[in-house]
Amino acid sequence: MKTRRVKILGTGKYMPSRMVTDEEMDLRLGTPRGWVRKMTDVAVRHFASDEETASYMGARAAKAALAEAGLSLADIDCLVCTSGTREQALPSTASLIQQALGEELYGVPAFDIDATCISFLVGLDIMSYLIEAGRYRHVLLVSTEIASVGLNWNDKKSAALFGDGAAAVVIGPSAGEDKSGIVGASIRTYSNGARLSEIRGGGTRIHPREHNAETEADFLFRMNGEAIFKMASKLLPGFVDELLAPSGSRMADFQAVIPHQGSAMAMRLMRKKLGISAEQLVYITPNHGNTIAASIPMGLHEAVSQGKVRRGDRVLLIGTAAGLSLGGMILDY
Amino acid sequence: MKTRRVKILGTGKYMPSRMVTDEEMDLRLGTPRGWVRKMTDVAVRHFASDEETASYMGARAAKAALAEAGLSLADIDCLVCTSGTREQALPSTASLIQQALGEELYGVPAFDIDATCISFLVGLDIMSYLIEAGRYRHVLLVSTEIASVGLNWNDKKSAALFGDGAAAVVIGPSAGEDKSGIVGASIRTYSNGARLSEIRGGGTRIHPREHNAETEADFLFRMNGEAIFKMASKLLPGFVDELLAPSGSRMADFQAVIPHQGSAMAMRLMRKKLGISAEQLVYITPNHGNTIAASIPMGLHEAVSQGKVRRGDRVLLIGTAAGLSLGGMILDY
Repeated sequence: MKTRRVKILGTGKYMPSRMVTDEEMDLRLGTPRGWVRKMTDVAVRHFASDEETASYMGARAAKAALAEAGLSLADIDCLVCTSGTREQALPSTASLIQQALGEELYGVPAFDIDATCISFLVGLDIMSYLIEAGRYRHVLLVSTEIASVGLNWNDKKSAALFGDGAAAVVIGPSAGEDKSGIVGASIRTYSNGARLSEIRGGGTRIHPREHNAETEADFLFRMNGEAIFKMASKLLPGFVDELLAPSGSRMADFQAVIPHQGSAMAMRLMRKKLGISAEQLVYITPNHGNTIAASIPMGLHEAVSQGKVRRGDRVLLIGTAAGLSLGGMILDY
Repeated sequence: MKTRRVKILGTGKYMPSRMVTDEEMDLRLGTPRGWVRKMTDVAVRHFASDEETASYMGARAAKAALAEAGLSLADIDCLVCTSGTREQALPSTASLIQQALGEELYGVPAFDIDATCISFLVGLDIMSYLIEAGRYRHVLLVSTEIASVGLNWNDKKSAALFGDGAAAVVIGPSAGEDKSGIVGASIRTYSNGARLSEIRGGGTRIHPREHNAETEADFLFRMNGEAIFKMASKLLPGFVDELLAPSGSRMADFQAVIPHQGSAMAMRLMRKKLGISAEQLVYITPNHGNTIAASIPMGLHEAVSQGKVRRGDRVLLIGTAAGLSLGGMILDY
């Protein structure tokens, strides 16, 4: 795979104002004090208010990314929402984000790409081809997630993991001497794991009108953590070998590894299985939780903001997602 | 824009077994006999049964398209669901289609692209770049829609328009002397029209738990047909000029124009505004209705099956969608 000459021009995030501490979660879940922290390592996650819709948060993150890139809305040629949840059944969340960003963006193509937790990775992977081919110059990718509305409070282990928030990334061509690029990427979906994490309802199979006290759980997030863990353990090493081989990369070559922050436990597994050092791992779980597809671009934003990743550094983006999907990308930032 | 050397290798469709005639719709809607036919020109649409889920229908259409292409599941490198509705809130419908297609597809990347009624057009446009770049060889695009579950029976004019069904298309590289290709494409989104057709509920803003007798309509399709009509009338001519200009194409050059079958009225407007002849128009509304994003690939499938479009013919795919989006593509079949 030849390096795609595409560059991350700017990143931004938006976190809802309401912070929910682990102590508050223990109270809400009825777990002993310290349980949430011990089980999840999430000290604080943010929950969106009614005003902080997905499109509102996405627009705020997008503006932050544009500012970071030194670009304005008028520079954007395409807007892609890369989220695992959506604001409404219809139209696409990207349209609603465009609306929230205002008339300067009217006319700019807007659509959604959904691969659950690795939606951003898939969106970045795909859209880089359109940039390289010259179809679009600057593409705005926005992941904006409200997990809190779909949590099953009876499933304490999963409810304790998630947080809301948005992250955005502006990409464009890597010109001249610039070494930035996408060195390799791989996406795999194993639908034998499609039922291991799901929200069964809310689509055309179980319409919202079916919601009642008995079916309630069908409209909430449900996951079989152990089975996912087992499946991911088995698949990840081969997946990463396949991803690294064409460029001859080794794990030690990466300045930073930015994983989907599925759970502290999943990341410990990943570190161990893949030989990622503590210094390499970008770990934002303690103050964000699992923000679904916003998790990877948020990790990228944090790593760049904190100076952990600088121009010229080689970075690995990696994650597992409902589907069950695996995604990985070698990025020269 | 240089021609992308990508070819439609096979098309297929699946229609649910239950056919709903205009007479039956008149009875259901409480309209005078002949009203549905007169208002919509839909003589028969199909409604899915509980067994005919979106993934089931999508898998059936996919198998038909593969057979037509002379390919097997093992030849597919990527599966993209390009629908305006989804089967479940999580995971992507593409994962569920992969599962319905069976283990031969395990590992093949699967994700969704959503631009409501022009999802197929956007998916074909985007994925053609990945084929041309050699990332994937054969991509399976599946549009599978169950409109019937979300109709507002009190809004007779819109309820009478829709039908369920699925269509699939296999694309691959256009090799050697083969003239097949994508000559040009354009997508535009004007989110000042984002509220003109929507299903407000079902996502993170109005969770299914909010469904009750009072909010019921929030979970059903709602459209302001007149306002869309007005907006589309204003935008379409300039949009098409912009699409045709780079290749020097004129409307008369197209053997067939395959529009999104939004409504008979919308297509009459389009024909008149854009100077499309009756012979050019692929019109499948009378026996399909508006099948959301499945509408354009279904029209393509019908045109090819009926010999209206043959190898070497230049075809225009075009549609408007909730968002409000416009999409168009010049395709040398």
